[in-house]
Amino acid sequence: VPDPVTFINCFDLPPGRDQEFQQLWEQVNTYMAGQPGFLGHRLHRSVNPDTGFRFINVVWWESAERWAQAHDEGFRKLVGQPEWESFRYTPTLCEVVHHSGMVGPVAT
Amino acid sequence: VPDPVTFINCFDLPPGRDQEFQQLWEQVNTYMAGQPGFLGHRLHRSVNPDTGFRFINVVWWESAERWAQAHDEGFRKLVGQPEWESFRYTPTLCEVVHHSGMVGPVAT
Repeated sequence: VPDPVTFINCFDLPPGRDQEFQQLWEQVNTYMAGQPGFLGHRLHRSVNPDTGFRFINVVWWESAERWAQAHDEGFRKLVGQPEWESFRYTPTLCEVVHHSGMVGPVAT
Repeated sequence: VPDPVTFINCFDLPPGRDQEFQQLWEQVNTYMAGQPGFLGHRLHRSVNPDTGFRFINVVWWESAERWAQAHDEGFRKLVGQPEWESFRYTPTLCEVVHHSGMVGPVAT
């Protein structure tokens, strides 16, 4: 069994662009969620728009290989849209090196 | 029942300082894990040291209030140590705004 990986992408955007960002992001997320090896995701938004990143997406994949394969031509077409240009992002592919307790629930 | 929150802290460090960082970080984590409202955490490390953040800590708390109260004098004493000065971090307190599927397992 290959090791699961966690992909974390941190987004900065100009003020007032949340809705536009989320619409674009959902196109990509829907596409990636259909790729083999995608396990699940949580898109986080900062409680305070003035501190930290505005959005942080955490995605769980079965393996680093599946994650890499998912970044195919269809993906590149979506993120190549000029609308993405005003959004800054820092993507990191991660492994978990220390953990405790439980993963928190999602508010309902 | 208050809404759960997710605290995400992204760390940049100079090359070769991973072990030193983890030792310092574990002091803070052990302290925070004993605070009321702490649910659990996952410390992530980048698979590739040259891209993205080197470490990303994700912590789940019962509520934003518990999270704020946990940042007390004992916490400030730990993070006020001069050894922290060479580590850059971007903390974000978040809510989950979109999610699907499952939270990935941790490699064993």
